[in-house]
Amino acid sequence: MKQAFPTSTRPVVAFMTDFGTGDGDVGVLKGVALGIAPDAQFIDISHTVPPQNIASGAWILATSYRYFPQGTVFVCVVDPGVGSTRRPIAVHAGNWFFVGPDNGLFSYIFVEQPIHQGVALSNAAYHLPQVSSTFHGRDIFAPVAAHIARGISLPQLGPQIDSAMLQRIDIGHATRQGTHIDAHVLHVDHFGNLVTNIPLRLVPDLFDSTKVEMTFPAQSVVITERRRFFSDSPGEEVQDDTQPFIYGDSSGYVGVAVRNGNAAATLHIGDGEAITFVLEN
Amino acid sequence: MKQAFPTSTRPVVAFMTDFGTGDGDVGVLKGVALGIAPDAQFIDISHTVPPQNIASGAWILATSYRYFPQGTVFVCVVDPGVGSTRRPIAVHAGNWFFVGPDNGLFSYIFVEQPIHQGVALSNAAYHLPQVSSTFHGRDIFAPVAAHIARGISLPQLGPQIDSAMLQRIDIGHATRQGTHIDAHVLHVDHFGNLVTNIPLRLVPDLFDSTKVEMTFPAQSVVITERRRFFSDSPGEEVQDDTQPFIYGDSSGYVGVAVRNGNAAATLHIGDGEAITFVLEN
Amino acid sequence: MKQAFPTSTRPVVAFMTDFGTGDGDVGVLKGVALGIAPDAQFIDISHTVPPQNIASGAWILATSYRYFPQGTVFVCVVDPGVGSTRRPIAVHAGNWFFVGPDNGLFSYIFVEQPIHQGVALSNAAYHLPQVSSTFHGRDIFAPVAAHIARGISLPQLGPQIDSAMLQRIDIGHATRQGTHIDAHVLHVDHFGNLVTNIPLRLVPDLFDSTKVEMTFPAQSVVITERRRFFSDSPGEEVQDDTQPFIYGDSSGYVGVAVRNGNAAATLHIGDGEAITFVLEN
Repeated sequence: MKQAFPTSTRPVVAFMTDFGTGDGDVGVLKGVALGIAPDAQFIDISHTVPPQNIASGAWILATSYRYFPQGTVFVCVVDPGVGSTRRPIAVHAGNWFFVGPDNGLFSYIFVEQPIHQGVALSNAAYHLPQVSSTFHGRDIFAPVAAHIARGISLPQLGPQIDSAMLQRIDIGHATRQGTHIDAHVLHVDHFGNLVTNIPLRLVPDLFDSTKVEMTFPAQSVVITERRRFFSDSPGEEVQDDTQPFIYGDSSGYVGVAVRNGNAAATLHIGDGEAITFVLEN
Repeated sequence: MKQAFPTSTRPVVAFMTDFGTGDGDVGVLKGVALGIAPDAQFIDISHTVPPQNIASGAWILATSYRYFPQGTVFVCVVDPGVGSTRRPIAVHAGNWFFVGPDNGLFSYIFVEQPIHQGVALSNAAYHLPQVSSTFHGRDIFAPVAAHIARGISLPQLGPQIDSAMLQRIDIGHATRQGTHIDAHVLHVDHFGNLVTNIPLRLVPDLFDSTKVEMTFPAQSVVITERRRFFSDSPGEEVQDDTQPFIYGDSSGYVGVAVRNGNAAATLHIGDGEAITFVLEN
Repeated sequence: MKQAFPTSTRPVVAFMTDFGTGDGDVGVLKGVALGIAPDAQFIDISHTVPPQNIASGAWILATSYRYFPQGTVFVCVVDPGVGSTRRPIAVHAGNWFFVGPDNGLFSYIFVEQPIHQGVALSNAAYHLPQVSSTFHGRDIFAPVAAHIARGISLPQLGPQIDSAMLQRIDIGHATRQGTHIDAHVLHVDHFGNLVTNIPLRLVPDLFDSTKVEMTFPAQSVVITERRRFFSDSPGEEVQDDTQPFIYGDSSGYVGVAVRNGNAAATLHIGDGEAITFVLEN
């Protein structure tokens, strides 16, 4: 943007969890944080990450965090190992702070952003007085995030962790061998669009190549149509407009959609489905 | 209300989309807006408008906007035509600002409120630096709304549009011919109540007329009971309290409910179902 | 916590309803409140309390309210009797204010906290100018809560109610007879964990007793395994890790979970299921 923007005078805390929104747990996180940082502004990223699914949580966070103001503190809780020896951590990476379990949830961040500092959250002075074994979001992560939002520095929260020791999961971006890419479905979004693990930067020739062929071998489905936007006109070879097509998703990955329809339901294809993608120039 | 109320010192931005809340897109809208208008207060109207359903979105907005403070900026994104030639617009109507696609989503507003000014959002200085073809909510609507919330005037955002040229969908309010009204189901709410397209102002005699008869011809269902509230006592002729009844919905339309039950499920009736309604005086 | 925390300069209003988040009603509550208390901070507890289910709403509120700052105003609307003679009330109990229908929704609060003052909301000066018979959340509860957030004292809202006259539902905590407890499932959470009505304070010997046996007679299911956290190692006698186990839920009640699984679905057990629990020392 071309204007100079004001710096927020209110700290921003963003939340992502697999808690759902029915049980009151998300409200509790905010109630706790507000008791510590009463001027904080809260933003929800998602609370319906598939339960215990660290890979899905990591992906949703990856597509979101860049759009938040500098200094935003992210509280991220997808935490099957809560109560065990997995460490609770806070990390300053890029322009943001990330608070949650050290289980790979921040893997994309660690690849995409410089890690300035990471600490293990062992200083109980910044936790709730009683820490349960099953709800560290409430007892550790929300209060710590609120303290960071108020200006507490990371070293006050616990001992520093070598950034190489922070847990990472295999992100599994597709790699390209000339005209050929082995890939899979990374995420099915709310509209039923299939988002693949093919970063758009891997296929700068997506719309310029003579021919593309995306094959889902297990389903014997082949997609060759490309469109720049959802209501783009189909090419001549298309008989109707219920044809699935390939597009560049706003998350930065190649996607598959059906206009005004649900590609996942139409094609019976879900998360993890294998893809063979060929671009001919 | 009888008291004088303070004017908010914080701009209000309200959001309505069909994005769902699972993917992080709604959080991204707010992250972007907060980077521009850090003191904004955000309110969610709904993010589960049925996908691509402009008519449902228009209705939900219509039942909500009047209850928001003067100057609220509404970001509304139900946008099957994103990336095509449909215009992104901002409109000042009544006491509020509306930002979104020019596809009919604001049809009720344009009928109910004076349109002071409408502009096409062509000035890229107020968009994100990179505008995708599939996510104008993030790239155009959220940043523009935040700029309006900060006090940018509409003409800075792009050329003015003649208000007669703003897109409208057919709202389709029922009309009355004496004692007879042809109508349909407009919306099924969270409780399964059927909201019809019969404005209450069309039936001031709803509770005073000698007899009413609401018929769903396709289902051979006839409803004659009227109640002023959900736990109102049924009339003598009613055998039990699972009887569907007619009431005045808080949205300003005639509704059908079952006490402590789900009328839509009980009657097997959904959106669009035809109704014949007769009031005898 | 060990630090002194700042007092919020912004009043906090928390919302819990059975409205769902699809229809715009929750946004309307906040729009109304913001017109009266423009500096309020809003937090959602849950809007998917099972429709009309006062007992579920009371439980969700009970597990949440303690974590909110002093002075938080709770707007709670699970209100099958809306429009009838059931009273709209505001109650100052413990460090908080509670606004909603007098139908038992605040039963846990009334047991757990001292009731300082309760009033019936009869002063229309603090309601919306037009009060419907079906949406008191919008017309009475949200505006009253915002007025309380701004500092209006309870007696201005209507006549005082003797605290003994406030409606209560039977909370039904389990009671213990030596080693034996008759109990039931109180709540199934988002992860499918079964939360029982056995307060942890009733079983201080949960992890120390020689043997525990939780039986669901209707299902012929017996659970004997105990774990301190979800990824705790199973004992030697366990063949695999899909075994359901007993744990201390963060809500303060005994729970049953399956590691990385859904206990309710695995065991085919839901709300209300009877339990016989035996602890041998």
